[in-house]
Parts: sequence; structure tokens; C-alpha cells
Amino acid sequence: MTHTITGDDLAAALDALRTQVPLVHSLTNIVSANFLTNVVLAAGASNAHIDNAHEAAGFARIAGGVLVNLGTPDDGTAAAFTLAAEAAHDAGTPWVLDPVGVGGLPWRSGLAVDLLKYRPTAIRGNASEIIALAGLGGDTRGVDSADDAAAAVPAAVALLDHADVVSASGPVDHLVGRDADGDVVGVRIGGGSDLLPRVTSTGCSLGGLVAAYLAVAPSPLVGLAAAHAHVAVASEIAAAKSSGPGSFAVEYLDALAAVDAATLTERARIESLDLAIVGGNR
Amino acid sequence: MTHTITGDDLAAALDALRTQVPLVHSLTNIVSANFLTNVVLAAGASNAHIDNAHEAAGFARIAGGVLVNLGTPDDGTAAAFTLAAEAAHDAGTPWVLDPVGVGGLPWRSGLAVDLLKYRPTAIRGNASEIIALAGLGGDTRGVDSADDAAAAVPAAVALLDHADVVSASGPVDHLVGRDADGDVVGVRIGGGSDLLPRVTSTGCSLGGLVAAYLAVAPSPLVGLAAAHAHVAVASEIAAAKSSGPGSFAVEYLDALAAVDAATLTERARIESLDLAIVGGNR
Amino acid sequence: MTHTITGDDLAAALDALRTQVPLVHSLTNIVSANFLTNVVLAAGASNAHIDNAHEAAGFARIAGGVLVNLGTPDDGTAAAFTLAAEAAHDAGTPWVLDPVGVGGLPWRSGLAVDLLKYRPTAIRGNASEIIALAGLGGDTRGVDSADDAAAAVPAAVALLDHADVVSASGPVDHLVGRDADGDVVGVRIGGGSDLLPRVTSTGCSLGGLVAAYLAVAPSPLVGLAAAHAHVAVASEIAAAKSSGPGSFAVEYLDALAAVDAATLTERARIESLDLAIVGGNR
Repeated sequence: MTHTITGDDLAAALDALRTQVPLVHSLTNIVSANFLTNVVLAAGASNAHIDNAHEAAGFARIAGGVLVNLGTPDDGTAAAFTLAAEAAHDAGTPWVLDPVGVGGLPWRSGLAVDLLKYRPTAIRGNASEIIALAGLGGDTRGVDSADDAAAAVPAAVALLDHADVVSASGPVDHLVGRDADGDVVGVRIGGGSDLLPRVTSTGCSLGGLVAAYLAVAPSPLVGLAAAHAHVAVASEIAAAKSSGPGSFAVEYLDALAAVDAATLTERARIESLDLAIVGGNR
Repeated sequence: MTHTITGDDLAAALDALRTQVPLVHSLTNIVSANFLTNVVLAAGASNAHIDNAHEAAGFARIAGGVLVNLGTPDDGTAAAFTLAAEAAHDAGTPWVLDPVGVGGLPWRSGLAVDLLKYRPTAIRGNASEIIALAGLGGDTRGVDSADDAAAAVPAAVALLDHADVVSASGPVDHLVGRDADGDVVGVRIGGGSDLLPRVTSTGCSLGGLVAAYLAVAPSPLVGLAAAHAHVAVASEIAAAKSSGPGSFAVEYLDALAAVDAATLTERARIESLDLAIVGGNR
Repeated sequence: MTHTITGDDLAAALDALRTQVPLVHSLTNIVSANFLTNVVLAAGASNAHIDNAHEAAGFARIAGGVLVNLGTPDDGTAAAFTLAAEAAHDAGTPWVLDPVGVGGLPWRSGLAVDLLKYRPTAIRGNASEIIALAGLGGDTRGVDSADDAAAAVPAAVALLDHADVVSASGPVDHLVGRDADGDVVGVRIGGGSDLLPRVTSTGCSLGGLVAAYLAVAPSPLVGLAAAHAHVAVASEIAAAKSSGPGSFAVEYLDALAAVDAATLTERARIESLDLAIVGGNR
């Protein structure tokens, strides 16, 4: 397996984000809507939250990237999710599916499976959600994950039938995609902070950042990796300055804005994932 | 009247919260959804916000505790409130009713009265809301309280026909329940900060914390008191480090995480409530 | 043209806000609901978010001021917007229209035009939105503005057929209204911070603050100007203490609370707008 993605790839993606200021169209939950927008703005992109069925399709066509997050769906927003996903797919707008709570909650699990038909560019979730979405029996406990991200790699690889790239978040994030030859490749991204799961919407807002990076990156896997690495580095910096979850959330936004290409190159802990070892090749 | 609850009781409840990490199922308003989740996480529990009618009942059955908050209801979430309350009642999941704005707003007042039939474990509100819900003529001014918490004690006692425990928040919180003999008992919890009402959702998020503590406490009154005391002590610590409402909100989350059993025992200002004096016995 | 508004006018409005603590009825979007409430509370007023069709009209009649913000409308909240606007108009409650995203999004653009029939007291938006609402061809890019506020003055003046006062936010805010003789007058308010657009909902929350000030000011133009000046001065103070968008948001809330009449008089950068120069007279 070749060295999939380098620090220079990540740095170039960050520079592209800051230069192009892509517009994310988010359809996210009521818990994360504010924090997600602040994360996307702090990182250097732009965000508009539009989740009604009258406008979702039209805006998905013109946005740089779309995020569909299943955190707090109702009948109205579920209809908008479908319209946005379909429009993004048809218009070639990259879009991200964040299958929050899939597995333990049957209604949204059906929604998530239906959305796969519009082939998300990226699927981002915690390990339990990725395992559940792949139909491999994950145990979802609300929005927290009971599984380790490495354990989700086989499920992530299985989901490559429905998406270009898939990531499972955890203490070490695991990301998979395909190379130019169609072979499955993967990367692991370390770092981060154990304060991340103590602040709500850090995972959901990563989904928004993935949508931003997909709009500017040369490939979905580079975009996905750049978003994960940006978050991991910023959260490390923030944790060093924090006294608890409240101050961490503040420092995290400051750090997302302060991280530049040089910092990302220097501090990102990215390494190729040996799919044979983690059981990802099938 | 015996000494109802001791600092040791509160400390044991906090330790149980940190050890068991109960999962709260919140159905709260769009103003408080993010902050409430951060409060519950910071304190040491977990939270999932699920307010659609397809999933609310199923999740209420498996959650550790449920919060139904009437802050920003619509037809869809109102249906979910009813389903969640009914399922919690049937499954024996402790649940909290926070009757935000009841009294001044007729539609939600009807909702609140309907929800009483599923017998909430706890009712938590400000003084005006507690008085209004008991039908005793409180004057609700939006989500702020125009009445002192002590004035709400007779109403709180009246509501014990519909709930195991009831609290009215104020500069000094007043809590009532019944002892093993069925006699009404109460406690007052002092402390807190005058910055609490300058930050939105501090009251609503207390409701979420009550749901978390009910999941682990040996009795509803201990759970209710532990949540109030945890908030009061954390807000005192936070106020001492704050320069205004913005920094207070940040320090408050840090303090909720930092408070441990020893701090709670040492700093909680809990005393028995003489119900004859405040007019609570009838 | 006379000197339209003085620093003393602004200071008197701030004192009135702190003394009277007006109650704002907000119907705002899910991104801004929490931050807007915190902004209104920090500034010294009170806020209740009530956006269901059952209660919106009744509450608009008794509130001090109403904000209708089109950020994340759906069929249910759109119905509530209309009911609240109609009730505010009929009851003489001052109300603010914030036409978020109007121009690029056809459905809400129709909503905004329909709402004009209830004659908002104030319309507050970014330059693109003001231009679009006036039918003058603005280019809205989500919730960000692609136009300079000065360029929106002709559109703002045109909208005085439908509202008492109109403002376009930007690096320098531009506000217009009519004097006692019915002549168009305007002011520019400088200051602020380039961190304001890096934090979501700073614009939306200004709309809430406008509603608060309209409830206590001697004229709509003084109320509008006081809200803009309060925000501009607080954001300057906050920016001097901030390390990025996260800390800015915290310092901003502290500064909104700390700014008093003397600070506002001393630091507000308000000047009359020469409408002949900016093309506002027609």
C-alpha cells in the first residue's frame, strides 16, 4: 500500500479552504446548529442552515457542499433531507451523511438507508453508527459510541459500496476510500482530546467541516482527512489551554481559526491504515 | 420534621452519576437544546435529544431519565411529549416536566395539564410556573419569574398530587416531596448566583440534570436536591471567576465538571424547609 | 439636514432599556435562538422565543417588541410569523423584520414580501438582503452579504414605504428613517469588529436587540440606532480582549452587559448620513 495522504496534502486543502471560502449548506439538528455554524466559520468557510422542503433542493444545487445530519429529524426536515440529497447528487455537489443515532432508533435508520440511494460523497459517524449503517450489528447508545473506531473499519469498507469515503470517529479516527485503481485505502488520524466528547456537537460540526473541505479538496479522501486533521490539531491546542468543557469549546473555536497550513503539516498525526491488519479488506 | 437530606446524600448521588453516566432523553426547546446537552455532559451524564413522534416513546423506555420541557412546543413536538411521557410512565423511567411559560400561554398550559396524567417523577419550574400549574393564579411573564420561590411552596405541595417531587427555582430553591410515611417534607437550597438568570437556559438545563440524577439517586427527592445543589455550587464557583454573563456561562460548564463529592458536601447550602412557616402544609 | 441623533439620545435609550427591561418576543431561527436570547439578556432586556401558531399572536400583543427572523422557516413557523406580525401591527407592538436569505431563496422571499403588509416598525438585514427585499437586484449568498452597506441605502430608502426605519449592517451600518416633517434622514454607525461576521448569529441577535430598544425608545430611529451602537461599541471592546471567534463571542456578551450610558456616549461613532451623496434621496 502506498503512502495515501501527506501533511502537504492537508496543508494545501486548508489553504484552498481559506482562499475559496466554500459555502456549506447544512441540514443539521437543533442541538448542533449554532456550534456547527461557528465551527465552519472559525475554520474559514461559510455556512447556511436551510432545512425546509421548499428551499432545500434549490440551495443544495448551488452550495459548495451539503451536510445532512440525522440528529433531530421530524417529518418536515426528513423531507428536506431527501430533497437536498437528491439535488446534491444530481448537481454534482459533494454531500455528507452523518447518521446520528442510526442503529438504536428505527425510524431514522430507515431514513439513512433511503438516503444512501443518492450516494453521499462522504459518510461520517461514530463507530457504532458506521457499524449499524452497514448492517453489521453495532450497538448505538444515543449519540455516543460504544464501539472503538478501529472496530468499525470493516463496516466503513462495506459502506464504500454507497459512498466515496467513510470515516469513523474515535480517539483515533479511521478513514477509508478508494485509490485511482479502485483499491480500498485508509488512513488513521490521531491526536484530538478527551474533552471532545464532553462538548456536544463536536462530532456533528466535524460533519459540517467535511462538507466544506469536500468543496475544495482534490479528492474526497483528502477532503475528509483534512477536516479530521484540522479538528484533531485544533482540539489538541485547545485542550492545552482549557480548564474544562466550557473553556475547551471556546478555545476550540479560536484554535480552528488559528491553525494554518504550517501548523497542520507539523502537527497532524496521519498515517496509512493497514487494512489487512484491521480487517478492512474483504 | 426530621433532617430530610444531608450533604452526604448529595455526594453519594454525584458519585453515582459519575460512575453510572446515565443517559438522559431530552425533549427540550430550541433555545436550550445545545446548552442543556453541554450542562448534562459537563456534570458527568449523557444526553440525547429526540423529539419526533416516531422515536420518542421507544427511546423514553430505554433512557435513564426523560425531560419534557415546554419551552418551544409545536404540534409535532407536543405529540412527541405525550408519547415520551406515557412511555416513561409505563416503563418506569423517571421523567421530569418543566412547564416553561405555563400560565401566561394557554395552549401549552393545556399541554402541561394533559401531561400530568402520566405522573411526572419531578416537576421543576420557576415560582410563577409552579403556581400557575397548580392553578393558584401565578403570573407568568414569558420564561422569567415574577414570584419568589418561597411563595410557590403551597403550589408545589399541591402538585404532589400529580408528581413525586416538585421544585421552584429562585434565589433560594424550594423543593418538596413526601417521606416514607407519606408526609410532606421539603428542603431549601441556597447559593447560586445572580448571573444565572442573565444566561438563558440555565433553568432548562437544570431540568436535564434533574432527569440525570433521578436515574441514579435512591429517591426522587435526593435526586432533585442533588441536581439543584450541583447547579448552585457550580454557579457560585463560576461567578467568582466571571466578568459577565458570557464568561459566566463558560466557567459554569467548567465548574459543573470540576465539582466533586467533597466539594458538594462542603459547599452545598441545604436545609430542611419548615412547611408550617412557609404555608406548605395543608 | 439636521444632526439626526446624538450620543445623548443613545445613552438615554440604554438607560431606558436597563430601567424598563422590555420583554422581546422572538421568532428566530434554530441557529441563533440561544445566542440571540443571551444577547438580549446581556444587554439588559428579557426574551421569550414563541414560534408556534397557537400562541404567537397572543404573545405578540403583550410583548414589548417582536422579532420575526426568516433564517430557518418551515410551514409551521411561517404561519406563526404571519400571526405574530399581524397581531403586533394591530396591537401597536413595535416589530422587526429580519429578512435573512431573502433574494437567493424564493420561498422565504415571498414570505418576506407578504409580511410587509403588516408594516414592520424596523427592517434590519445585511446589504444584500435589503437590496433584494426592495426588489433592486441584490445578490444574496446564503446569510452573508456580498454587498457593502452603503450600496444598500437606496434600497433602504425605498423600503421606507413599508417600514418606519430600515438598517443595512456592514463594516459601517447604514440606517434610514423619516423626521417629523416626513423627510428621509439617515445615520451611519461605525466601529464594530471584523470578528462579528466570524461568529454566527451576531446579525440575527442585533435584530432581537432592535426589538428591545424599539420598546423603550422615543422614536424608531433612536431605538434602531441605539441597538446598532450598543452592538458596535460592545464588539469593539470585546475584540480588544479576544484571541479568535470563540473568545470574541464570550467577551461580546460580557461587553454588552458592561456597556453603560457613559461608555455609549463616549465611544459610539454615529454621524448623519448625507443621503444626496450616497444616492439615498429619490
